[in-house]
Amino acid sequence: MPISKRIKVRRGARRAVYDQETIHRILDNNLVCQVGFTVDGEARIIPTAYLRIDEAIYLHGNRRNLMLNSLLDGQTACVSVMQLDGLVLARSGFHHSVNYQSVTLFGQASVVQDDIVSVLDQLIDKMVPGRSQALRPHTRKELNATLVIRIPIDEASAKVRTGHPIDDDDDYDLPIWAGVLPIRATAGALIPDPLMKPSIPLPEHLKQDFRVR
Amino acid sequence: MPISKRIKVRRGARRAVYDQETIHRILDNNLVCQVGFTVDGEARIIPTAYLRIDEAIYLHGNRRNLMLNSLLDGQTACVSVMQLDGLVLARSGFHHSVNYQSVTLFGQASVVQDDIVSVLDQLIDKMVPGRSQALRPHTRKELNATLVIRIPIDEASAKVRTGHPIDDDDDYDLPIWAGVLPIRATAGALIPDPLMKPSIPLPEHLKQDFRVR
Repeated sequence: MPISKRIKVRRGARRAVYDQETIHRILDNNLVCQVGFTVDGEARIIPTAYLRIDEAIYLHGNRRNLMLNSLLDGQTACVSVMQLDGLVLARSGFHHSVNYQSVTLFGQASVVQDDIVSVLDQLIDKMVPGRSQALRPHTRKELNATLVIRIPIDEASAKVRTGHPIDDDDDYDLPIWAGVLPIRATAGALIPDPLMKPSIPLPEHLKQDFRVR
Repeated sequence: MPISKRIKVRRGARRAVYDQETIHRILDNNLVCQVGFTVDGEARIIPTAYLRIDEAIYLHGNRRNLMLNSLLDGQTACVSVMQLDGLVLARSGFHHSVNYQSVTLFGQASVVQDDIVSVLDQLIDKMVPGRSQALRPHTRKELNATLVIRIPIDEASAKVRTGHPIDDDDDYDLPIWAGVLPIRATAGALIPDPLMKPSIPLPEHLKQDFRVR
């Protein structure tokens, strides 16, 4: 993918990554993105769940959703995913930072007409692998109420920061504790719906270690 | 605060919250926001650390930072904070959801001229309470290289979803496991910088249970 002006990383350029594998990994490891669009020339952001399939991401929502419909007016969408991995505790305030993996991508949205069931089921399975098969089927009414859009990953870049603080040379002699506080998103114990019959056993697809963001 | 057209929540309006206390709590519980702005009429998003003081949020970066400087051209910034709290596992794909707390705010940025040290130190202390006092002082060169902007919280709304799936009435009889998978951001064990002298003890401000997002 050529590095366009939009996606060229200016600040912290040494943290820039443009390879497809890294971009896909970050997109696949996270559930929620932030979608940037314009309304009357002003920037708006809406957080929403997303799914990547091949070289595109998919968003969905109510057929009258303002964000989805705004993106279909021909404008270029900006989608941002940010995974916070840690706090970087340096010897000066200036060199404090965070460890993270982020993706910014740009593309023009189009409506997905066929087979939105497959997209919706893959999104469920991104939340919990194997779950879509355990659910009652989508109804025609639900599918009619749902708009799915596809944004091709036309331009994308990632930024990744890992590791320890980069302090000024002289500061390494200071008696200041420095290092990294790792941060992870972790899943707690499943909480059964109190309205569920207690006789319903925990299905296989929920007997797993969840890796969530 | 009046509910303007920009911040009126359209989708999922029953999850909308406009009270200042909730908005402040969500802003104070999270470290990274997504900043929406326009360049040549197109939406852009940059994730960045932020700090709330009273009725404004503060961003900082290199003096030549494109995002910060774009926000100073008179446009209205859109800032989004999204805290994912859980996966809502319903009996149908349609009613799958996530539990979350989010804030969207709009305001026009201005440069902070005086006392950026106080803002920068409060941002450090938001990462780790008490840490700013343990660091070597900011240098004039660092302060000169740093731009701090203030965005008044002129218009803001929050959305909060908690609790169990809301399924269709008939679906409660289905033999499908339903409930919530809670998600939290948790801090791991501190990792000392290998370049730090081992004789440096862990300071008091790092002996705490970290609550991080």
